[in-house]
Amino acid sequence: MKAEVLAFFDRVRPAIDACLDTLLPAESASPEQIHRAMRYSIFAGGKRLRPALCVAGYSIFQNDPAPILPIASAIEMVHTYSLIHDDLPAMDNDDFRRGKPSSHKQFGEATAILAGDALLTLAFEVMSTCRGFDNKALLRATGELARCLGTRNGMIAGQVLDLEAEGRSREQSDVEAIHSAKTGALLSTSVWIGGFLGGASEAECRLILDYGRRIGLAFQIVDDMLDETSTITALGKTAGLDRKHRKATYPSILGLDESRRMVRELTQQARVCVKPLGDRGATLIEIAGYLETRGR
Amino acid sequence: MKAEVLAFFDRVRPAIDACLDTLLPAESASPEQIHRAMRYSIFAGGKRLRPALCVAGYSIFQNDPAPILPIASAIEMVHTYSLIHDDLPAMDNDDFRRGKPSSHKQFGEATAILAGDALLTLAFEVMSTCRGFDNKALLRATGELARCLGTRNGMIAGQVLDLEAEGRSREQSDVEAIHSAKTGALLSTSVWIGGFLGGASEAECRLILDYGRRIGLAFQIVDDMLDETSTITALGKTAGLDRKHRKATYPSILGLDESRRMVRELTQQARVCVKPLGDRGATLIEIAGYLETRGR
Repeated sequence: MKAEVLAFFDRVRPAIDACLDTLLPAESASPEQIHRAMRYSIFAGGKRLRPALCVAGYSIFQNDPAPILPIASAIEMVHTYSLIHDDLPAMDNDDFRRGKPSSHKQFGEATAILAGDALLTLAFEVMSTCRGFDNKALLRATGELARCLGTRNGMIAGQVLDLEAEGRSREQSDVEAIHSAKTGALLSTSVWIGGFLGGASEAECRLILDYGRRIGLAFQIVDDMLDETSTITALGKTAGLDRKHRKATYPSILGLDESRRMVRELTQQARVCVKPLGDRGATLIEIAGYLETRGR
Repeated sequence: MKAEVLAFFDRVRPAIDACLDTLLPAESASPEQIHRAMRYSIFAGGKRLRPALCVAGYSIFQNDPAPILPIASAIEMVHTYSLIHDDLPAMDNDDFRRGKPSSHKQFGEATAILAGDALLTLAFEVMSTCRGFDNKALLRATGELARCLGTRNGMIAGQVLDLEAEGRSREQSDVEAIHSAKTGALLSTSVWIGGFLGGASEAECRLILDYGRRIGLAFQIVDDMLDETSTITALGKTAGLDRKHRKATYPSILGLDESRRMVRELTQQARVCVKPLGDRGATLIEIAGYLETRGR
């Protein structure tokens, strides 16, 4: 099963990379510095999990993934924007990302802020000018992407709550609210957009979204656990920062064993969500299992 | 003529403010801090020039401005995002905006960065979920808004070029490239979006865009001149900063007299652009004249 999901990622990753390469302005295009910075972070070796989820959702209903690739690439752009801004000195102040200096260390703060802004902006340009979809559906997908990035239970809400929670005591429900907004919203919307634009019925869309919420939370708990237990070499970014910043994490509240149990349970729930899709949901089931055991 | 354009602004401003008030989450909505910051900058006493241009463009073809108000409000959101990020310490490092502490002075850098991100994101949510327009047209307007904010001759390109040009010698063509990207692109797109969604033909759209480009450049030259000649009280932000930062400005290259002559010429050209629209273009002509003499 793991071999199959790795093969899926190995197929999707170069397709997404090629699409991103056509969508991003060349480094030689003026102003060169901003395009260099955008490409530096986009091609920093990301796993392309969110675009892969989008493609997987689409592929439940469609054989040829080509039409969804620009949409999946736009999703990777907004993910990368969030990483660049999160790393800034005023935010998490992280000097490393994916084993390389973070954007502001490499290009300076001004360029890093603008590179994040530019990737967010380009993502919406790509979404709204994408061909091959019904206009109404494309507008809805664009609106849902914006919503999941926003301040009402979206990514920015998660980032704000996360910064506010630093150093404070908090409960499991607080951590869950932070995680579901900060990571879960984009992850679940990624797979939802794929399914929705692939032609899922409203009922199928709901199943896919429920699946996405569960793997999204499981993903973040695993992330927290890896931050506790990994080294900078394995993680590609500074390890142990959550503890140092007294971040709100699952291991800090529940301990590693209970966190691990929650990941298992959420993964199992995610599998159950997409079971009604039958064989077509196999890739989503495999991805859930893969995310459960990543980093081990 | 000036009285008429002031009356137009006086009608549009409260309508835009009321629309923004419904579109922005309440300050009491969690996370409160980010919503406070978004509202602080949005309701800081902006003149609503860009939304007014959007409404003016729309009103050439439509009697009831109500449908365009959310779109015009989204345009004000992206304008405000750009001001918040421009003021950041890593960028122009300006502590005042519209006579009040800038966002990062009031809320801290992290919240200011996120408030800018959130306004940009919300603008695209509003654009793509707006009712009352043809889906294809709405997608095109959304795409054009994103494009004019981006790195290819858009607002971010202008900001990058502006930062790069600080302290360097440069020519009129450099300054024009900076200004047309940094300010002109959004100003001209604002009026274009209004006209386009109002139902302008392709030929009429071109006239409106040409008009917008000319008043956009004139607007920025006037801005440069005001920075040279005003006080902080009149300007609402720190005056003389362009000179201090050795910014690329028209007065620094051409002198005040020649800058003033260019503003007159561009304003006249703008008037000629919309002349073929007949009486329907009267408001645009009045706005051009108003912008020429603002601050005097």
